[in-house]
Amino acid sequence: MGMADETKMQGEGLPLGFQWGAVRAGIKASGGLDLAAAVVAGGGRGAACYTRNQVVAAPVTVGRRHLASTGGRVSAVLVNAGNANCATGEEGVEACVATCVAAAEAMGCIFDEVFPSSTGIIGVPLPAGKIVDALPGLQASLGATPEHAAMFATAILTTDTKVKAARAVVDVDGVEVRIFGVAKGAGMIAPQMGIPVATQAGGPAHAMGHATMLVYLFTDLAAGTEDLRALLAPAVERSFNNISIDGDTSTNDTVLLLASGASGVVTSAPVNEAFASALGLVCGSLAYQIVADGEGVGHVVTLDVTGAETEADARQVARTIANSPLCKSAWSSGDPNWGRLLAAAGRSGVTIEPGKMRIAIGEVAVFENGVRAAGFDEAAAHAAMIERDYTIAIDLGAGDARCRFVTCDLTAEYVRINADYSS
Amino acid sequence: MGMADETKMQGEGLPLGFQWGAVRAGIKASGGLDLAAAVVAGGGRGAACYTRNQVVAAPVTVGRRHLASTGGRVSAVLVNAGNANCATGEEGVEACVATCVAAAEAMGCIFDEVFPSSTGIIGVPLPAGKIVDALPGLQASLGATPEHAAMFATAILTTDTKVKAARAVVDVDGVEVRIFGVAKGAGMIAPQMGIPVATQAGGPAHAMGHATMLVYLFTDLAAGTEDLRALLAPAVERSFNNISIDGDTSTNDTVLLLASGASGVVTSAPVNEAFASALGLVCGSLAYQIVADGEGVGHVVTLDVTGAETEADARQVARTIANSPLCKSAWSSGDPNWGRLLAAAGRSGVTIEPGKMRIAIGEVAVFENGVRAAGFDEAAAHAAMIERDYTIAIDLGAGDARCRFVTCDLTAEYVRINADYSS
Repeated sequence: MGMADETKMQGEGLPLGFQWGAVRAGIKASGGLDLAAAVVAGGGRGAACYTRNQVVAAPVTVGRRHLASTGGRVSAVLVNAGNANCATGEEGVEACVATCVAAAEAMGCIFDEVFPSSTGIIGVPLPAGKIVDALPGLQASLGATPEHAAMFATAILTTDTKVKAARAVVDVDGVEVRIFGVAKGAGMIAPQMGIPVATQAGGPAHAMGHATMLVYLFTDLAAGTEDLRALLAPAVERSFNNISIDGDTSTNDTVLLLASGASGVVTSAPVNEAFASALGLVCGSLAYQIVADGEGVGHVVTLDVTGAETEADARQVARTIANSPLCKSAWSSGDPNWGRLLAAAGRSGVTIEPGKMRIAIGEVAVFENGVRAAGFDEAAAHAAMIERDYTIAIDLGAGDARCRFVTCDLTAEYVRINADYSS
Repeated sequence: MGMADETKMQGEGLPLGFQWGAVRAGIKASGGLDLAAAVVAGGGRGAACYTRNQVVAAPVTVGRRHLASTGGRVSAVLVNAGNANCATGEEGVEACVATCVAAAEAMGCIFDEVFPSSTGIIGVPLPAGKIVDALPGLQASLGATPEHAAMFATAILTTDTKVKAARAVVDVDGVEVRIFGVAKGAGMIAPQMGIPVATQAGGPAHAMGHATMLVYLFTDLAAGTEDLRALLAPAVERSFNNISIDGDTSTNDTVLLLASGASGVVTSAPVNEAFASALGLVCGSLAYQIVADGEGVGHVVTLDVTGAETEADARQVARTIANSPLCKSAWSSGDPNWGRLLAAAGRSGVTIEPGKMRIAIGEVAVFENGVRAAGFDEAAAHAAMIERDYTIAIDLGAGDARCRFVTCDLTAEYVRINADYSS
C-alpha cells in the first residue's frame, strides 16, 4: 500500500463514480458560471462539517436535515454562488428545499439525497426560480473529465481569483483510491468547523459560523458514514480550522467528504490510515490555497507556535496574532515589529511567560529571554518578510504542544475590496 | 450640590494643587514634546487601572509597585512618549526606576511617589539618560495655567492628531470640585482595563494588555485611595472598556485618578455620587475622543446593543462586531451590509436567536423577524452611514441588559499608517 506523496498530488486521475457540471443561472452579477453540481451515480456516502456560527444559512439547515434523514446518503451536490441564502428566514429554507426537489427530479434521485450549498451576499432572498430554470442545462453539462471538474471548481467561486483544487492517490494493492478536493473562499475566512454532523435524526445541531468557505472532497473509496466522519474530523481540524484571512467566521462554511465507492476498495484499519494521510495532504493544500488567494493578500505567513501546554493554547495564540490588525498591517510592509506579535500573544487569553518565549521571523531570532534578541538583525528580518511566503516561529517555552496556522497580511486592497459599494 | 452638566464641561477651571509641564527630551523621532510631568504639591492620592495584557511594560510593573509601597501616595506623574519601555526585561525596569529616582530628586519627593508611564515602540531600550538629562528643564517648565496643562496633554501624544481633554465641575455647597482629564491613544486601542490595583503590598498584580491608551484624571477632591478606587472602577468600565479602534489591547494601557485634595472638599456619600457622575462624563468624553481621533478613522460608530441577558453578553456582541474587519470595511464606504453585523454576532460566542433580533442603522430598520426588514430602505441606510457619526442598534431580544460601545471604521489609511516602514 503506497502513501500519498507530493508526486501523487500531481496525478491527473479523478475519482471514479462522479460527474461534474456547471451553468450560468444569472445569480452572479458578473454573469459567470454560478450554479454547479456533482452527481454520484447510484448515490454515495457523505460526511460534513459545518460552521460553528450560530447564524447559519438555509442550505446548512437543510443539508444537515438531509444527511440526518438519509443516514448520510448523497446523490448530488448542488451549489450556487452569488447568494448565501442566509438570514432569509423560513422562506429561505423553503427556497432551498424547492431547489433540492427540482434538482432531484432532474438528476434522478430523492430530494433529500441532494446536498445544497450557497455562497454570496447575506440577507437577499434566493432566486430559486433562476436555479430551477437552469437545472436542465446543468444536468446536460455533467461529465467526468478534468474539464467538467474544472467547471464545477470555477462556478463555486465568488471573490476568489483562482480555482482551488488538490488531488491525492492511495495505492491499495495495485488499486488506486483517489481523492479530488475543490474549495472556494477568499474573504470572511476564519473557519471554526464543528465536528462532522451526526447523520441520525435528532443528532446534535451544533452550529457556529464564518464567512464562507466551501470545500468538497470527492473520493471513490467505499466507506460508511461513520468511517467518513472519523476520517474527516482530524483532517479539518489540522487544516481549515488552522487558517484565517480576516477572523470573520462565516455563516455558510461547509466541508463535505463524499465517497462514491467506485474504486471497490473498502475501508479497513490500514486503508483508513493511508487514506487519512492523503486526505490531510489534500485539505492542507486547499487550506493554504485559500489563504494564498485571500482578498488583497500580499504575503502568506505561517505561524508555527510551539512549546504550548496544549494544542488549543497554541492555536489560540496563533489565531490572536493572525487576527491582529497591527500585526497584519506590519506584515504588509515587511516591518519586523515583533513587539506587536508579543503584545497579541499577551492578550490571547493563554497564560504566557514572556521570559520563556522565543520569536523568530524566518531564520532571524527577534525576541528571547524577555528582550530583543541579542544581535537582532532588523535588516535580515525585513529581508525575510519581503518574501511572498515565510514563517514566524513562536516558542512559548511552556510545553510540547504546537500548531501550524496559516494566515496573511492586511492590505489597503483588502479594505478596498470589502468597502466596494456603489449605491 | 450641583451635578456636572454639559455647561460645566465647558468650564475653564483646572483642579487646584497641580502643576503641569513638558519638554523635548529627544525620544520622539519628530523632535516634538515627549516628556511630560504633573506634580502635586505636598503629594496626592492615586488609584490606577492597568491593561489586562499579560505582557506589560516596565512602567506598569514599577507603577504598580510604587502604588503598593506608598499606599497610593503620588507626588509626580512622569510620562514619556516615543518609547514604550516594554519587552525590555529587567534592564527596562531598572531604567524606569532610574528615571523615577532622578525625577523625585528634581521634583522634591520620594522615588516611589513618582508614577511612571511610557508609550511608543515596543522592544527598544528606554533612553533613560535622555530623560534624566531633560529633568531640570521639565521641572522649570511646570505651571498651573491651561497652557501648562495643554503642554502636558500634547507631549504624551504619539500617532494622535489631536489633544484629548475633558473637564467637569461638581459644586459642593458653593465650593467647586474640579476634574481635568487628558488622554492619548489612536492605535492599539481596545482597552480591557483590570480593576484598580490594590495599594497594599502583596495585593493582586493582575495584568492584561493592549496597545497604548494613557489617561490621567486630575481632581482636587480630598479622597482616600479606597474611595478613589471605588470611583474609578465603574467609570472605566463604562467608558474605556467599551471602545475599540482595532481590537489590539496594549501592553501599557493606564488610567490614573489622582486627587490633590486642594479643594478642601472631602468624600461623603452624596459627594461621591455627584463626583462619580462627573467622572463618568469626563471618561466618556475622553473615550469618545480617542476613537474619533483613531488612526485613519472616517466614521465613529456607536453600537447600542440592547436586550441582552447580561451586560457582559452585550459587550461581547458589540466587541465582536467592533473588531470585525468585514463590518469595519463596510462602514468605511457606508455599505449597509447588515449580514456582516449578523454574522459577527453569530460568532461572538454569545447565545443568540436571530429570529428575536432586530438591527437598525441610524433610524433605519434593516433586520427583524429573522429576515431583512420589511420595507428595507437601502438608500436611507446608506444615507445614515454617510454621516461622520452614527449609531447601529442591535436588540438581541433576550433580556434587559445593554452596552453602548464606541468604535470606528477600518480604512486603507489605517493600514498605511500601521504598515509605514522604511528600512
